[in-house]
Amino acid sequence: MSILVVGSVALDSIQTPFGKKDDVLGGSATYFSIAASFFNKVDIVATVGEDFPKRYITLFKCINIGTSGLSIAKGKTFRWKGRYNYDLNIAHTIYTHLNVFKGFKPEVPRSLRNSKFIFLANIDPELQYDVLTQIKNPKFIACDSMNYWIEHKRKDLERILEHIDMLLLNDSEARQFSGESNLIKAAQLIASFGPKAVVIKKGEHGVIYFSKNSHFIAPAYLLESLYDPTGAGDTFAGGMMGFLSKANRINESVIRKGIIYGSILASFAVEDFSVNRLLEISISDINSRYDHYRRITKF
Amino acid sequence: MSILVVGSVALDSIQTPFGKKDDVLGGSATYFSIAASFFNKVDIVATVGEDFPKRYITLFKCINIGTSGLSIAKGKTFRWKGRYNYDLNIAHTIYTHLNVFKGFKPEVPRSLRNSKFIFLANIDPELQYDVLTQIKNPKFIACDSMNYWIEHKRKDLERILEHIDMLLLNDSEARQFSGESNLIKAAQLIASFGPKAVVIKKGEHGVIYFSKNSHFIAPAYLLESLYDPTGAGDTFAGGMMGFLSKANRINESVIRKGIIYGSILASFAVEDFSVNRLLEISISDINSRYDHYRRITKF
Repeated sequence: MSILVVGSVALDSIQTPFGKKDDVLGGSATYFSIAASFFNKVDIVATVGEDFPKRYITLFKCINIGTSGLSIAKGKTFRWKGRYNYDLNIAHTIYTHLNVFKGFKPEVPRSLRNSKFIFLANIDPELQYDVLTQIKNPKFIACDSMNYWIEHKRKDLERILEHIDMLLLNDSEARQFSGESNLIKAAQLIASFGPKAVVIKKGEHGVIYFSKNSHFIAPAYLLESLYDPTGAGDTFAGGMMGFLSKANRINESVIRKGIIYGSILASFAVEDFSVNRLLEISISDINSRYDHYRRITKF
Repeated sequence: MSILVVGSVALDSIQTPFGKKDDVLGGSATYFSIAASFFNKVDIVATVGEDFPKRYITLFKCINIGTSGLSIAKGKTFRWKGRYNYDLNIAHTIYTHLNVFKGFKPEVPRSLRNSKFIFLANIDPELQYDVLTQIKNPKFIACDSMNYWIEHKRKDLERILEHIDMLLLNDSEARQFSGESNLIKAAQLIASFGPKAVVIKKGEHGVIYFSKNSHFIAPAYLLESLYDPTGAGDTFAGGMMGFLSKANRINESVIRKGIIYGSILASFAVEDFSVNRLLEISISDINSRYDHYRRITKF
């Protein structure tokens, strides 16, 4: 079943101890949709500026990513510049130029309003809610957020939590939202606002998934070389939801497998700058690494 | 088969955000042997002072821990005082009074020199080596160390690495020893000094085990309440070696299960101050948590 993602398509400038890149393809919807595209058709709802390289739009189309919801607005594309030191878990923002993203009002094309798997990437929770009102009969809605919205738009974020199946946050955001340092307690408090499941992302330390009655711990795939962690969380979400949409049923077992596929996709994403590594791999590379993951976690 | 541990038996004073305790039972050999005692007979080689409470020696004897190698020396027992803030992964030492431990020359009683499973807890690597020369036909030797020895007794530490089956270190120590920030590369470098296996302990983020041809990733058991992380690493080692000695064969599958048992024992240890929680539980509590761990990591 088809997947819809609402988020950013951006040009990133990135510095890590392993090199630097300027104006490369980035944005939450980009990472998400490329990861999900290994499993299913994905449609992007986002906006870019007139300076957005046409080759990227061609690329999206080539790999089964629908761009009918990707508008080209007057002005410049959203740009983010960040730096990572040796602790690649922490992104230091140098600048964020919202540009055309400042006036972004996501409009879901009529033909996509019956999409079944919806990912609300990290944008203003008011806009996330607005997107939901445009969708007809979704089957599974997942939502990401960030520290800024937790601090400045808490009420809007709480409202969206009543309407979603899964919230994805990193560990510091989960602690910030809940005021609980213990992650089990943090997840329980977040779940009390409505979402059926909470996924707490711990970067190189993996992921913890909480549902009402159970939890699931998945360590990250161990890498020998890690170049650029940008987009790892959105890639994780894309791999997971791609797998769920392909399975086309939601239960604990499918979600757990989806979480591992998400982790595997994220492990590829960080092996090169931007989405470069994701564009090199095939589903058989993904499946081999999934099998290897199973072997190195089995006991 | 019998287990021998050489390390410290101490009186700890501990402050955490959840309370404080003075002069409670601690030390690497204490945590190790109580954890291992759930599986097999353990013998301690250590020294305490004349002020060491007799009730603790009675306790050791009660739970199948041999004390023929535990000498009582003139002077005071080794004391450590530490503080943890909300990040319970980091111990801040307030003082270390070596006391009788300063002159400690481990002497393995003749009757214990054919012990098969040997744990060299974190003491001066010169002394660790000296212990090895006293042991006849060991089957499995594991060794722990710390930043101080890596910095000040590197040559002695390298020498002992040639003679052991497994080195246990935490992640920062592995990085310090190897000069590699990536843990796969760090483990490979450490393994090149001799040990068949390297276990890197990441506290609340679990454990990674490296052998020559493979690795194994084990997340930590997730806890809702965590009071005092003191001794978690030695408890882990005790649970693991207890299991190995009971299985009495060493292969990848047994080691992996042992690592999970070690993690489970450590998860109990941190639920209360000192060894209190370990003294409350039974092997059936351990097995239930092991089964739960399997369920929350299965996919």
